[in-house]
Amino acid sequence: MNATNRQMHLGLYLAATGHHAAGWRMPGAQAGGQNLPLITRIAQTAERGKFDMVFFADSPNSAPNMHPGMIVRLEPLTLLAALATATQRIGLAATVSTTYTEPYNLARMMSSLDHISNGRVAWNVVTGSFSEVGENFSKAHPPHDKRYAIAAEYLDVVKGLWDGWEDGALVMDRDTGVYVDLSKRHELNHKGEFYSVRGPLNITRSPQGHPVIIQAGASDAGKDFAAASAEVIYSIQQELESSLAFNNDIRERARATGRDPSRIKILPGVIPLVGSTEKEAREKLARLGELVDPKTALQVLAERLGHNLDRYPLDALVPDLPPSDGMRGHAESLKKLAKKHNFTLRELRDYTSVGYGHRLLIGTPEQVADGLLEWFDAGAADGFNIMPPWFPESFDDFVDHVVPLLQSKGKFRRDYAGATLREHLGLSVPPNCYQQ
Amino acid sequence: MNATNRQMHLGLYLAATGHHAAGWRMPGAQAGGQNLPLITRIAQTAERGKFDMVFFADSPNSAPNMHPGMIVRLEPLTLLAALATATQRIGLAATVSTTYTEPYNLARMMSSLDHISNGRVAWNVVTGSFSEVGENFSKAHPPHDKRYAIAAEYLDVVKGLWDGWEDGALVMDRDTGVYVDLSKRHELNHKGEFYSVRGPLNITRSPQGHPVIIQAGASDAGKDFAAASAEVIYSIQQELESSLAFNNDIRERARATGRDPSRIKILPGVIPLVGSTEKEAREKLARLGELVDPKTALQVLAERLGHNLDRYPLDALVPDLPPSDGMRGHAESLKKLAKKHNFTLRELRDYTSVGYGHRLLIGTPEQVADGLLEWFDAGAADGFNIMPPWFPESFDDFVDHVVPLLQSKGKFRRDYAGATLREHLGLSVPPNCYQQ
Repeated sequence: MNATNRQMHLGLYLAATGHHAAGWRMPGAQAGGQNLPLITRIAQTAERGKFDMVFFADSPNSAPNMHPGMIVRLEPLTLLAALATATQRIGLAATVSTTYTEPYNLARMMSSLDHISNGRVAWNVVTGSFSEVGENFSKAHPPHDKRYAIAAEYLDVVKGLWDGWEDGALVMDRDTGVYVDLSKRHELNHKGEFYSVRGPLNITRSPQGHPVIIQAGASDAGKDFAAASAEVIYSIQQELESSLAFNNDIRERARATGRDPSRIKILPGVIPLVGSTEKEAREKLARLGELVDPKTALQVLAERLGHNLDRYPLDALVPDLPPSDGMRGHAESLKKLAKKHNFTLRELRDYTSVGYGHRLLIGTPEQVADGLLEWFDAGAADGFNIMPPWFPESFDDFVDHVVPLLQSKGKFRRDYAGATLREHLGLSVPPNCYQQ
Repeated sequence: MNATNRQMHLGLYLAATGHHAAGWRMPGAQAGGQNLPLITRIAQTAERGKFDMVFFADSPNSAPNMHPGMIVRLEPLTLLAALATATQRIGLAATVSTTYTEPYNLARMMSSLDHISNGRVAWNVVTGSFSEVGENFSKAHPPHDKRYAIAAEYLDVVKGLWDGWEDGALVMDRDTGVYVDLSKRHELNHKGEFYSVRGPLNITRSPQGHPVIIQAGASDAGKDFAAASAEVIYSIQQELESSLAFNNDIRERARATGRDPSRIKILPGVIPLVGSTEKEAREKLARLGELVDPKTALQVLAERLGHNLDRYPLDALVPDLPPSDGMRGHAESLKKLAKKHNFTLRELRDYTSVGYGHRLLIGTPEQVADGLLEWFDAGAADGFNIMPPWFPESFDDFVDHVVPLLQSKGKFRRDYAGATLREHLGLSVPPNCYQQ
């Protein structure tokens, strides 16, 4: 790859309470996962900053000890449709679980969103990390590897459905009375282990052909799935070296499935905390630390490690915990970090409560930009998923002071060149499987 | 009821190709179920006409012989979210099947839409009329009465989920750090015959408490379901007397379940065809008739009767057909009509191809307004679901020439008095089952 021409990709992970569990308590903070005017303003700020996309996490449940941004919030697909009409160019990504939805419904809604947004939609494919979600869906949460087997077949079905109508199928010829050209209509007739789906969809192929596929799995099954299918990968990395190793691992696996590894954009999550001086940035961090409830902070860590931590002493070293069935990427990254720094459980708790397991970049705009460029130039990242600790200040600071530095160095677009998210990401429209 | 104060309710059944199968071929017609700018303009016209709501039909499948407006189209929930941001006051109603979705997902999306639209959303509850839909969802289409049993439990679950957070649960107190008041959070813990759902939703109770419930079932099971649960009923009626009988039947059944029958608004579907003279209106009808393909027209009738009609002679009387498993309301109404007029199959085909089984009102604005007022004043309707044969002309004619007549007679609002769809319909917010 040519380091001088390579362009960084930026996503905004839009947790509308801010990523820090106490971000909503900061002076001047505006917060609320149900606050559409606020979410719209934030998305418009990201668009002003020429971000590739805004992204919404999701899980179809609510637990009392969740991150405040997750306890109550707007549903991502309906939210994306509303944002599509309030923005013009920025990509819009939503998380939907393959474990608790039907592929026909999901394929249809994603296609509809891609039509509504004129080609700006992405789907973050997840299998669900919380086993209690099953209790909302009249069934048991499937075990980890089975969830990925289901997801792989689910994604095949969805892609097949997206191809069900060839380009030009919608004729609408008033003279002949032909509304659609039925020779361009293809039933899928999928019969697999988990799904049996006839098709086609009741919507034509969307502007991007397929909405962009995002994945974030970090287990072995997750990495295989991402390497085989993902076009954007959200990763959780604390160290440049391990990020490089992760990226190489993914690209190797992609090559093994016959894919062009350059068609995968890997965006590690980053928490930026910008001050006009480093001291000011550190003061903001200290302020955040004072506002967080210690029990909430321990719960954040417990969720990421996949184990209840109440019975472990806070001032002893982080205990040896067996692998969990949940957020494996977080668990591995945090355990590695704890080992490297000989963290006590209390230290790991405090570290995680700020970054939620993601990399922290604290300092002046120059320091934050340099932290991004270091990884980008080393090939440890194709860009970043930016996770502001609170809104609007910590994101405004990033857009107004860090983005211009990236632009002046020629590493990030000054304006959108394309209209679709695929164009922003440099990803071509996938060929239709019926037109090859 | 006081005939002088009673106000008519109007819905627009927005099939964006027009309701007539050949409406999209009319001179000047604009059409397309995926054409968001067109659909937005139509919804804004309905809002200019002070309609209570716009309504979208749905079925999660696509068959070659469907009405052109159904073959390919935007998905209704994502479409509603987009329209919510492009309109201010008008209600927005979408059809979703209880047979092919999960109650947790549906409750969540409807609640999200109600938040996004500031309380303007309605859900038309259907169980699905087309047995082939099951082939898109890895399962067999359940038989008619079982579908209604599933729907009844599904609706209970959804309503319980909508009540999961009491008003005021979202505290967001910066000083104490309390984000939500957990004493106002209620798990549903539903365990029924078909569903087991713990809850609560990850979204607070929406502006309308519950989105408005619409139903259109006309079988015995459908009428019982509607009487027990519906707040708006779409009916299919050709004759004033049978509409009165249907309404009395529904209100009797509602009373038997302990409901106040005045909380049910019954809106028969009506196809308006307005001309500056009756002759001009009839010429438009003739023009539509010339544009329709006879095979399509027969298919429209076959779908409504629930039987393939290819083997029956067109010029013999309509054959005696057993009840079908599909659109029972249409089948009954059309068979009654055929008997009354001694229709041949050809005559019934041509009649149905215009109105799709619904009542036709053809003539000058005065004639169309009188046709609506006759039923309204007799108590045969609380309002109407307006089904324009094509867009924009036949709907503009209605809004610009018929609505003002209804307004000048004091039977229809000159402007919106309330902000939510419940307020337009005169329906109060349901009490929260946890706060009674």
